[in-house]
Order: sequence, then C-alpha cells, then structure tokens
Amino acid sequence: MRIKPKPQPRRRVRPASWPSTPAAPVSTTQVAPEFAGSLDGIGRTGTHPLTRLDENQRLWAYEQRIKDAFARIVPTLKSIAARVPDAGFEDWAQAEARRTLGFELPESLLADAWVAGLDRRALFAHATFETVRAMSDDYFTTDPLDDRGQSDEFRRFLLDCGFHAMNVTPCSDGRLAHAIRYVLRLPMGAVQRRANAGALFDVEEALGRWSAVELGRFREGVPNTADAPTRYLKVVVYHYSSRDPEHHGCAAHGSDTRQAAAAGRERLRAFREAVENSYCCGASIEGLLIGIDTDTDRLRLHLPDARGDADLDRFVDAGALHRETARLDPEAARALIRERVANPSGGGLAPAPGMQRLIARLIEHNISQLDYVRDYHNGHYTDIGHEERFIGVGMDFAEIHLRNLTYFSFLRTLEEGACNLDVGIKIFKQLNVEHGLPVPIVLRFEYSGQVPGARERAIERCERLAEAIAQRYPDLAEHGLLHTYWTVRDSQGNGRLEPVGGSLLGGRTA
Amino acid sequence: MRIKPKPQPRRRVRPASWPSTPAAPVSTTQVAPEFAGSLDGIGRTGTHPLTRLDENQRLWAYEQRIKDAFARIVPTLKSIAARVPDAGFEDWAQAEARRTLGFELPESLLADAWVAGLDRRALFAHATFETVRAMSDDYFTTDPLDDRGQSDEFRRFLLDCGFHAMNVTPCSDGRLAHAIRYVLRLPMGAVQRRANAGALFDVEEALGRWSAVELGRFREGVPNTADAPTRYLKVVVYHYSSRDPEHHGCAAHGSDTRQAAAAGRERLRAFREAVENSYCCGASIEGLLIGIDTDTDRLRLHLPDARGDADLDRFVDAGALHRETARLDPEAARALIRERVANPSGGGLAPAPGMQRLIARLIEHNISQLDYVRDYHNGHYTDIGHEERFIGVGMDFAEIHLRNLTYFSFLRTLEEGACNLDVGIKIFKQLNVEHGLPVPIVLRFEYSGQVPGARERAIERCERLAEAIAQRYPDLAEHGLLHTYWTVRDSQGNGRLEPVGGSLLGGRTA
Repeated sequence: MRIKPKPQPRRRVRPASWPSTPAAPVSTTQVAPEFAGSLDGIGRTGTHPLTRLDENQRLWAYEQRIKDAFARIVPTLKSIAARVPDAGFEDWAQAEARRTLGFELPESLLADAWVAGLDRRALFAHATFETVRAMSDDYFTTDPLDDRGQSDEFRRFLLDCGFHAMNVTPCSDGRLAHAIRYVLRLPMGAVQRRANAGALFDVEEALGRWSAVELGRFREGVPNTADAPTRYLKVVVYHYSSRDPEHHGCAAHGSDTRQAAAAGRERLRAFREAVENSYCCGASIEGLLIGIDTDTDRLRLHLPDARGDADLDRFVDAGALHRETARLDPEAARALIRERVANPSGGGLAPAPGMQRLIARLIEHNISQLDYVRDYHNGHYTDIGHEERFIGVGMDFAEIHLRNLTYFSFLRTLEEGACNLDVGIKIFKQLNVEHGLPVPIVLRFEYSGQVPGARERAIERCERLAEAIAQRYPDLAEHGLLHTYWTVRDSQGNGRLEPVGGSLLGGRTA
Repeated sequence: MRIKPKPQPRRRVRPASWPSTPAAPVSTTQVAPEFAGSLDGIGRTGTHPLTRLDENQRLWAYEQRIKDAFARIVPTLKSIAARVPDAGFEDWAQAEARRTLGFELPESLLADAWVAGLDRRALFAHATFETVRAMSDDYFTTDPLDDRGQSDEFRRFLLDCGFHAMNVTPCSDGRLAHAIRYVLRLPMGAVQRRANAGALFDVEEALGRWSAVELGRFREGVPNTADAPTRYLKVVVYHYSSRDPEHHGCAAHGSDTRQAAAAGRERLRAFREAVENSYCCGASIEGLLIGIDTDTDRLRLHLPDARGDADLDRFVDAGALHRETARLDPEAARALIRERVANPSGGGLAPAPGMQRLIARLIEHNISQLDYVRDYHNGHYTDIGHEERFIGVGMDFAEIHLRNLTYFSFLRTLEEGACNLDVGIKIFKQLNVEHGLPVPIVLRFEYSGQVPGARERAIERCERLAEAIAQRYPDLAEHGLLHTYWTVRDSQGNGRLEPVGGSLLGGRTA
C-alpha cells in the first residue's frame, strides 16, 4: 500500500509561493528503541560538530512542504468524489480543490460527473501534474534549497581539487532521487546528474557530454582553459539496503550489492578507456564509485586499486567517521577525516591529493545528512521500499531532490531507454495501478532557446515519446491507468518549466 | 514493376573478387531520338574536354557488376523454384546458386521444401543480403572506386578552399544514393554523408558532429589546428525530376522543387544559427545548397544572397556550363567555369573565393557525370522512378554508391526516424510486396573498436532497432514480407562489415 494520507493540513496551500516555516524536528531522544540498531553507532545524544543544522532545517522544511502537497491529493479527491454531483457540485469542488491543493480541477471532468460519474483517475493524474508544476515553479523562481547561492563556491572547490566538471550517475531508483542535494549535499548547477537504472550510464552519451565540456574549455575557457591540468570527474552511485539487503537493494542488480558496485566500476572503466582510446594527447577522466545505504543515507566512498579503478573491498565509510569524530571540535573532526582518507585503515593505496580533499568534503556533507535522517526520520526511513509519486522521463529534472518522490529515467527515446521505464512501470503497478490509480508520467526535454527550432523539436520529442509510451503499455493507456504530462524548459533561460501538452489534454497544446 | 531480370550471365560470379572488365559504352551516336531533348544541349558528338573517361569506365564497370549481381537473384531463384524438390534437389539447387549467385542458400530452406514448399520470400531475402555482403566485402577490401586513392588529394583541396570538413546531407531517396561518388565525384573518406528524407537533417545531431570535429582540431590538430581560419562546410542536396517534375520529385516535399530547396536552405540556416548561438568566439559554419535532377544527374549550385543564405533563384547550372565549355580546351574550359562562378550571369553576389573554387571543381566533377549519363544511360535514366533493391537503416553505409540501389535512412532509433523509414516501406510495398516479395532491410551500426563494449552495444542497437521495425510493420513481418539483416562495422578498423544476426537467423548470432 502506498497512499497513506497524512492529516489534513491546517493552512491553505498556495503552491506558487510555498510557505517556508520549517516544522520542528523530531527530538533525538525520541528515537524508537527498535530503530536504535539502525543508527550503527551514530551519536544519538547530540549533533555532530560538522553538521549544518540550519541547512538541515531548510531541507526538512522543503521535504515536508512538498511531500505534504502530494499527500493532500488523495484525501481531497476522496472528499470531492464522496459528494453526489448535484447542482452546486462544480463550484463546491473547485473551491475545495483551491483550498486544499492550491489549483483548480478540469471543468469538463466536474461537469460530466453527473452523467458518467467522476473520472477519478483523470482527476488524480491532473492533481499530480499540477502539484509537480507548482513544485517546479517554486524551485526555479525561489531557489528554496539555495542551490544558486552555493554553486559558485563548490565549483571553485572542485577546480581547486583538480576537477573542471563533475557528472554524477545515480540509479534511477526514487530512493536516490535526493542523492545530489541531500545525501551528497551538492548544489545543483555545480554538478550534472544523469540517472540510469542500475547506474548503468550510456558510455557513448557520456563521451558526447565529455566532448562538449572539453570543447567549452578549448573555445571559451569555461570553466578553465584546456591547458589547465584538471580532469573531468564521473561519479557512479550504486545503492543497497542495510535493513533488508536481499529485497530492497537495487532491482537492476537483483539486490546484490557487490554486483551493483562491480557494474558501476566496470562502467567507469569503460568510459575512461573510451575517452583514452578515442582521443590522444593524454585525454582521460577521473572516476569515483560511491555506495548509498537507502535506509539511512550512509555513504561509502571507494578507494583506488593498483590499476586506478575503484577497489570494491576498500572504502571510506561516512557512518564510521561520523561516530569516530562526533565528539571532536570541528577542526579536529575535519583533520581526522582527512587523515583517514589519506591513510586508509588496512593500508593500500590512497586517492590522489585532490580526490582526497573531495572525498573528505563529501564525508563532511554526508555527516549532516546522517544527522538529518536521525533527527527527522528516526535514524532510518520508514519507507524502505518504493513510494514514488510520479515517474519522470527524458532529460534530468533539475528541480527534483526529494527521496522517493520520483522514479527517474534519463532517456532520449523509449526505444533506447525502455528497460529503464519498464522498471518504473512495474513499481507503479504495485504502488498505483493495483489500487485503481493511474501511473503519472512527466516528460521533460530541455532545449537551447538560442537554437532556432529547438523548442519546437523538444515539443515534438515529447509528443513522440508519449506516443511510444502509450504504445508500449496499451493496457494501461487505454484504461486511463497511465497519463503523460509534457514539459519543456529553456536550459539557457534558467526559467520555469513550460507545459506543452499531455494525455489529459488530448495531445499537444503548444 | 521492378524486377526486370537481365539475361543470364555467362560467367560464374565470385562476389568476393568481382570481375572488373568494363563493358563497352553505349555509342553516343545511338542516342534514341526521343531522348534527345533531355540532353539539354549537352554535346552529343564528343566527350567534354574535362570529362575523365577512365573514371567513367571504372564507375560504369562497377555499376554494371553490382547491379547485375542483384539482377541475377530473381531468375536464379525462379529456376530453382521451378524444379520439384526431388531427391537430387538440394545439391542441384546449391550448385545452381553457387554458379549464378556466388553463394549458397540456407540448407534448411531447401531441405524443408518437399514438405511445405519452398519459402521463396526467405530465399529472396537471403540472396539479397548475401549480395549486399559480397558487394560490401568487395568495396572494403578492393577499393573498386579508388576512394582511398583520391581522398588525400581532395582533403588538401578542401583545406586550400578554407574548409576543414565537408558533411553532405542528400535526400534518403535511392535516386541520390550515388550522389557523393558519381554525381559529385567526391571520394568517400574525404567527406561525410548523412542522408535524411527530404534532406531534412537533425540540427542537434549536426551540432554534435560539428563539436566532435572542432574538438579534434583543438586536441589533435586534425585536420588542421583550431586557430586556422577554416570552416566546417555543411552541404544539403535536394532533388527534382526534369522529366516528370510533378510526380518524380522529392516525395518528402510533395514533388515541389522550390519547397525542397527552401526547406534545405532553412535547415542550413538553423544549423548555422545553432552553432553561432551555442558557441561564442565567432563560431560559425559555411553552408552550400545543391540541387540534382534525378533524371540526368545535372547539378545546380546555389549562390549566396545578401544574408549569406542560399539564394533560391540564383544558381550555377552545370548542364549549361557543360554546353558552353564543351568545345574549349581543358584550361580554357576551367577558366570559363571559374569566371561564371565569380561573376554570375544576372549579377548579384558571388561566393567567397574559396567557395568559388569548390563550386568550380564540383561543376567540373559533374561534367564527367553528365557525359557518363549520356554515354551509358542515353543521357537520361530509364528508371526515373524508384527501383531500389534494399533499404539501408542506421549509420551511413560507406560502401553504397549506386543510384537506385538503396533507400537509405540515417537514424539512431526508429522512434526518431520512423518518418524516414515509413517512406521507404511505402516505396517497397509497390516495388516488392505487391509482387509477393519481402522488403529486405539491412541494419548497420558502426562502433569504435577502441571503445570497450562498443561492439556489443552496436549489436544491441541492431537488435533493438530490428524489434522496433517488426513492431511497427507487423503485417509485413508476420507474413515473411519484411526481413532484417544486422551488420556492424568497426569504424576505426577500416575493415569489412560483420553480419551479427537477422530475422532469417531467428535473431542475433554474435
């Protein structure tokens, strides 16, 4: 069961300008005894000296606000569906929707309710899409996670560490949808994200992305000139479940943690060799393999082996370092973390100095997140399985940073990316379809507003993809159990998303 | 009707080492009176001083040899199908196939013939695919058109004209399949080809290709360093029919010549603006719009307008220049061509000096082709409509250079390229399906043998595309009226094509 309505909200929601009062954190002394073990020794009686409590509060307020908005959908529609569609029904229903959801429902659906009944599936899809739209507008207009504020500093730090770009591939799994902004505490904008099922990114696509970055350095000196001895960093993030490793690990790797890590290492190696062999003159990249425990957000960062690949058996564990440094002052804690990265326990190779600094910083970032999970989720998520609210397909959704909000598939065409979406549909069959609710799919393609015709082509791409999706899952589409919402965004305009059509609208609208 | 069997060949065919004796040309005095008008004043009593007769002979020998091989398929299968499958049937049929086609037929098809009859459709597809394979092997191992010999010189010439790359998009139409090597007389290897229906190339794909070339200049100084003031040249080739302009022009543009030219100009402009707006520092490209009369291979090269785009109404006509220079000595002919390009009749802007040299050279090249069509095709092709032998899908087929041999679709996925293939299927329904024969589709993806896993991914791409094709045309696929043959090729190995599977083989074999 997925739809667990939270208590009705007390205030009127206006998604276009989300309220930002943070809710009070769960007291650390309220940790339920049965979860104590899951804290793995993470200090329970105080905040770690490196934890940024202010940021934790901001992130928690955001998480609550957005998830509450999604959680209000079912109770609201339930109460609307409970009323017989009498004379005053339409006005009342719209008022209800505005009051609790912050937007209206499609007039035609309400108007036709007295004849054929209320199309609850269409209403649910509409409400989900409008909530996504409000969340997205909020993100792009108010910068609620302070991504813009932090991007420049982190970019400079990356360059100092010897990396002119950082491109991260987490698994598509919704339990990693918050990997960048929460688990790793990285500002969007300073890093790129390319989610793929099993974190198995497309080497040719990655090679194209690498070329574009290198050309920018050569032609425009952005972010630095090509003669600077920095490298492109590719990060692969696999995941596992400490609570139920046999069932809640990565579906793409049969919940086998070692296989997930090995596949990530293999893909990083293939990408590095692709760059080295396709281009001469010492072209190469740097790779970093990271594992996340999706129950606690605890991070492990793999150390290099003698070949320069990630060693599957040697890694730095942020959870252990949290415990080890919890009672030190901030500087001593930082020093000990750096020491542990530079001289890994058990011996063996250490990363290069720039990589050491980056790893130490990611551990410090993750320490905040470990305290976040302890303070706001009792040290351990209760939704250890899938609880995504919608599927995102196409280009990366820069505005999505919440755990279990979105199952995401990075793909150009369904023909190439069907394996990614099939997994998502399977998940949503259990989450939604089994309960009579449709699978809401948001499509997204970005375009460069400076390239003639690019917006039009992005819209055509949405149209084509939506058609391919409807053809691939005809049983769902024909019964209103799958709905698509088409959005495009000007990547250079830094503006809002633009809805351009969808299955509820009978096709394209722009 | 398409299948017009030629007389049985006199010699045994061994496709792996094609015989190379050129056939005698049709005497120029044998021009049939009814075709005289089509020569448009091109000299009929002697070869133009700039025509390369040796090359014409080589190209004609090649055209005959390959087309004969395809033409032998139907008579051979017909004779095999005419015999009752008795005790000696299988051995005899294989001997017949070896003798006339140069390869054997699938044993299982022959062995099962006595039970369910001979599967003629499968035999036809098999024979077509084997003939493609033999042609391809021949091309890559013996360089029959002297592409390798001429590439270096033409690359140097291009650089001298101020172009470090030349990328040509002809229409997918099979009547332009010989555009590069015959009509324009360009060596493959020195130019890139990207065929698209209606010559409407994908701007984003072109932008990616442009970036890759520029990065090669920056990183490796190939073909020249990035500071050299040369440009990337993109050429669009539209087409029309002088004989039957209303019906045998470009299907993608409703046989409207002006619309075909305007669409090509528009796409060139969009590409140029895409480069200019995506990159700073004066990044740009050069564009050239070319029209080909598919009945005579006569070329028109458009001149620039005041904005630097192609002027639809002003062009240099290679046919007129053939006539005007036919009685001059070679040097005087060249000088007059250069003069006409530098000072276009009717006034108006002339191209930049480097472009003038290239256009003059392309006219000289086309003059050879005009004499070729006069000498070997009575000045005018008899197959003014479609007569393609198979459909090629995927990456460019470097080995295909014969008119009406292949309908070609450049595409990564059917989802993006379906419109290209739909046109091809429509053509082959008339050519083959109406006569009970299947549509033979050859898939091709190239890979870099230096990139780990790239070959495997190219094979997967074939598999995926074949599945998408079977799903899109189920009526054909299920009745054996559509067959696919999957091939990959190492783009850096310069080697042969590698067959990796196909519908006749029940899937993949590698």
